[in-house]
Amino acid sequence: MEFVRNCWYVAGWDHEVRADGLLSRKLLGEPIVFYRGQRGQVVALEDRCCHRAAPLSLGRREGDCLRCMYHGLKFDAAGACVEAPGCERVPPKLAVRSYPVVEKDRFVWIWMGDPALADASAILDFPWHDSPDWRMKPGYLHYKANYLLIVDNLLDFSHLAFVHPTTLGTSSNAEARPRIERDARSLRIHWWFLNDQISPNHKRVATFDGPVDRWQLYEWNAPSFMRMDSGSAPAGSGAPEGNRVPQALQFRHTSVQTPETESTTHYWFCQAHNFRLDEEGLTERIYADVVKAFDEDREMIEAQQRTIDATPARPMLPIPADAALNQARWMIEQRLKGEREHARAA
Amino acid sequence: MEFVRNCWYVAGWDHEVRADGLLSRKLLGEPIVFYRGQRGQVVALEDRCCHRAAPLSLGRREGDCLRCMYHGLKFDAAGACVEAPGCERVPPKLAVRSYPVVEKDRFVWIWMGDPALADASAILDFPWHDSPDWRMKPGYLHYKANYLLIVDNLLDFSHLAFVHPTTLGTSSNAEARPRIERDARSLRIHWWFLNDQISPNHKRVATFDGPVDRWQLYEWNAPSFMRMDSGSAPAGSGAPEGNRVPQALQFRHTSVQTPETESTTHYWFCQAHNFRLDEEGLTERIYADVVKAFDEDREMIEAQQRTIDATPARPMLPIPADAALNQARWMIEQRLKGEREHARAA
Amino acid sequence: MEFVRNCWYVAGWDHEVRADGLLSRKLLGEPIVFYRGQRGQVVALEDRCCHRAAPLSLGRREGDCLRCMYHGLKFDAAGACVEAPGCERVPPKLAVRSYPVVEKDRFVWIWMGDPALADASAILDFPWHDSPDWRMKPGYLHYKANYLLIVDNLLDFSHLAFVHPTTLGTSSNAEARPRIERDARSLRIHWWFLNDQISPNHKRVATFDGPVDRWQLYEWNAPSFMRMDSGSAPAGSGAPEGNRVPQALQFRHTSVQTPETESTTHYWFCQAHNFRLDEEGLTERIYADVVKAFDEDREMIEAQQRTIDATPARPMLPIPADAALNQARWMIEQRLKGEREHARAA
Repeated sequence: MEFVRNCWYVAGWDHEVRADGLLSRKLLGEPIVFYRGQRGQVVALEDRCCHRAAPLSLGRREGDCLRCMYHGLKFDAAGACVEAPGCERVPPKLAVRSYPVVEKDRFVWIWMGDPALADASAILDFPWHDSPDWRMKPGYLHYKANYLLIVDNLLDFSHLAFVHPTTLGTSSNAEARPRIERDARSLRIHWWFLNDQISPNHKRVATFDGPVDRWQLYEWNAPSFMRMDSGSAPAGSGAPEGNRVPQALQFRHTSVQTPETESTTHYWFCQAHNFRLDEEGLTERIYADVVKAFDEDREMIEAQQRTIDATPARPMLPIPADAALNQARWMIEQRLKGEREHARAA
Repeated sequence: MEFVRNCWYVAGWDHEVRADGLLSRKLLGEPIVFYRGQRGQVVALEDRCCHRAAPLSLGRREGDCLRCMYHGLKFDAAGACVEAPGCERVPPKLAVRSYPVVEKDRFVWIWMGDPALADASAILDFPWHDSPDWRMKPGYLHYKANYLLIVDNLLDFSHLAFVHPTTLGTSSNAEARPRIERDARSLRIHWWFLNDQISPNHKRVATFDGPVDRWQLYEWNAPSFMRMDSGSAPAGSGAPEGNRVPQALQFRHTSVQTPETESTTHYWFCQAHNFRLDEEGLTERIYADVVKAFDEDREMIEAQQRTIDATPARPMLPIPADAALNQARWMIEQRLKGEREHARAA
Repeated sequence: MEFVRNCWYVAGWDHEVRADGLLSRKLLGEPIVFYRGQRGQVVALEDRCCHRAAPLSLGRREGDCLRCMYHGLKFDAAGACVEAPGCERVPPKLAVRSYPVVEKDRFVWIWMGDPALADASAILDFPWHDSPDWRMKPGYLHYKANYLLIVDNLLDFSHLAFVHPTTLGTSSNAEARPRIERDARSLRIHWWFLNDQISPNHKRVATFDGPVDRWQLYEWNAPSFMRMDSGSAPAGSGAPEGNRVPQALQFRHTSVQTPETESTTHYWFCQAHNFRLDEEGLTERIYADVVKAFDEDREMIEAQQRTIDATPARPMLPIPADAALNQARWMIEQRLKGEREHARAA
């Protein structure tokens, strides 16, 4: 399967690459080993020795280098082999692929496309991951489904009414239609529910009763990045006009995916809150609620993938609620088309 | 793999489709969801929402309808979508496939071929399934083998001497040859063992000693239906002439298969008896004996399938005992040929 | 995958084919059943009845014959069907393949190529398997890897420094280079470490301290047979000149592989010793040390196979230490080429 390559993907939460230890992870079908060098910087190398294909993740870190523990070839952080048994001078072609890596906002970002195009300033911001104004617990899910099915899910919240009636959704999600705006690289999707009932997950942390103004305002960036401002405030307290009163429940949500293979996906998420930062257990409860909802999604999406695999020739028929996901798939297709043209030109 | 489609297949025992609950079952490679409508009638729909391929078996029954619990599309018993979020008027092409279903003789029957040809009067009779004169316990097996290997097994009882020496067979099965008659749709196979020893399973329920006249008289209908009159009576008591004395052990046996996939099969069976209907535990003991014998078959046939998979290029060489199974395979082939011609004409 | 066929392969240790019982084993992708006839001789037949592909390993031994327990066909040790239900005269084409088998040096050897070329005098000698001067415990490993990756491993002992630092190797293995000699059918590889530290596994059974002269002198025969003279003696005691003093630790090692499938391999091994033959537990301790080291290899080689499977298009780049394994792969390729020509000529 063809994946968008010229973009920064998330490879993991920063703590997943430990000071000691080697993390082996497959991204876009390629086995990669991650480790930290002497100054703590993250290194990402092809997890396959160029000699006989032994995994370097069974190797040993030596300073900034990684040694294959099959026959002893040693690679530096740029992937060059700097030592090989029986070689006085190591031939330059003895090398493994090295990937540009950046740590930002508690994510490890990796560039798997044309290295000449890797521009760290293009990495999306997730400031609530390590801001003192926000608290969150980092989450991870492994999916047995193609990443596009997850993208579909995130771009159509009408499913909240059906998949998440006891967690994220209310019946309003089935009827309401969001406002959708598109530019070259992103979609902005705005759901407002005015004077509506509170959703079950907000109810469980709210300090007020009665109807709410509830919002889910998010930006989705191709191929698989979602950042959301969501929350509930007492109805009529001015949320739509930008006035967030003290009792308002405000969240910042992160949902990003990186394809592992054509049929499996890495999924990182968090639900940050800016209220009652010192309340014991609150962050954990908010996290647990999201996990419960995300397990609901995963059950459905993995079943959807199995059904697609079993009936590959049957069509998918569109409905009006597909507007955003159709635009997203079109944007991804444009990116792939652009990369094919870039590759032909090179 | 090509399956006979223009026939009524068994989809399950009637109790497998519960008043509440959705049964997901794959037949001929197609995922199907079964449920009961408000009057108890069985409905069979494609287990795949036409929108995004979510399984409807994760959905919710609403009256006679079934709602997909991913995005909320609602389908009636004919497969038409009658409600879709954001659609004031649902386009008629939004529909899933619906299958003709009939309940008869405690079986749920399904038609997966050309609906114009579905004629419920063609469904085979199994009157002993719910007659007051007979008692039986319904059985089900799942096979990791192509259904044709099970058909082979049922059409050559010489295997009873080797696979079932402690359950169904006696050494006579190895030597005797049955009488075989064929018409356009069925084979009739008659085994008689006169003045023979009793088989182990009959021995365990008999109230008399000594030699028996034993019979296995069955009709096999393409592609995969077997109905049998079998039993033992004291030798010379007139069974071959149609006189079944009171001590005679009389059974009616059902063995039907429906392909799940090319390499797996659903198998429904029962062994009804018309004697000592009130004897506690007798029906259960007869059932347990059949299950034991059928596990013997399954062990052999699944091993046979694995060997075929491992040696696909090696031939199968015929022996005289193959007469019935060769005719059965020829009949199935004729059915497939007829269906290909019907499809071309249409 | 193409395998060398015109050679004697090991099918098992002699005790694996028990006096009673049937051993089913796949070799070169072919299912084979092994059993002992009335005089104890090993018989090897295709594990697939020629009638309907039932495995003969679910059958019953009758004298020198094997009966299929599905429909009762009976085969003699040459694979001819000598009895079939309903056949007064069994047609000669009813037969399964039979393989030449020889027992020698506690191995069961099988010939899977052109039977006209089977010459038992060509079977390699492993006299330490049943000599009173040596003791050993027979070992077996199942590998989820192609056999060539194991051949690679055995032909480059530089990996001992990295994979086996606490068992078989010392750091000298990384730097030293062996002497390699080749003739038409074999490689002879000689490693000498003079005045070197003792290896961990030798240390654990030695009765002397101090530096050693250590050797690993082996012959590898295509496609997958390794026989080795290895050991340690006090440095300067004359081992390189052929003088093996009484304290010297002398071993004979066997490592042979037979492909099970393209991606799995049978591996038989032993480590015989000729010292302290009566010391309780010594043979077991030596065996356990080898098993520990071989598990280290297996972990690496199976991971290597998975990496190759995940990245089939990536090349393997040579280093100088590959000399022997490149010659071995070339010798195997020559054998395959010769067999293709032999097959075309026939």
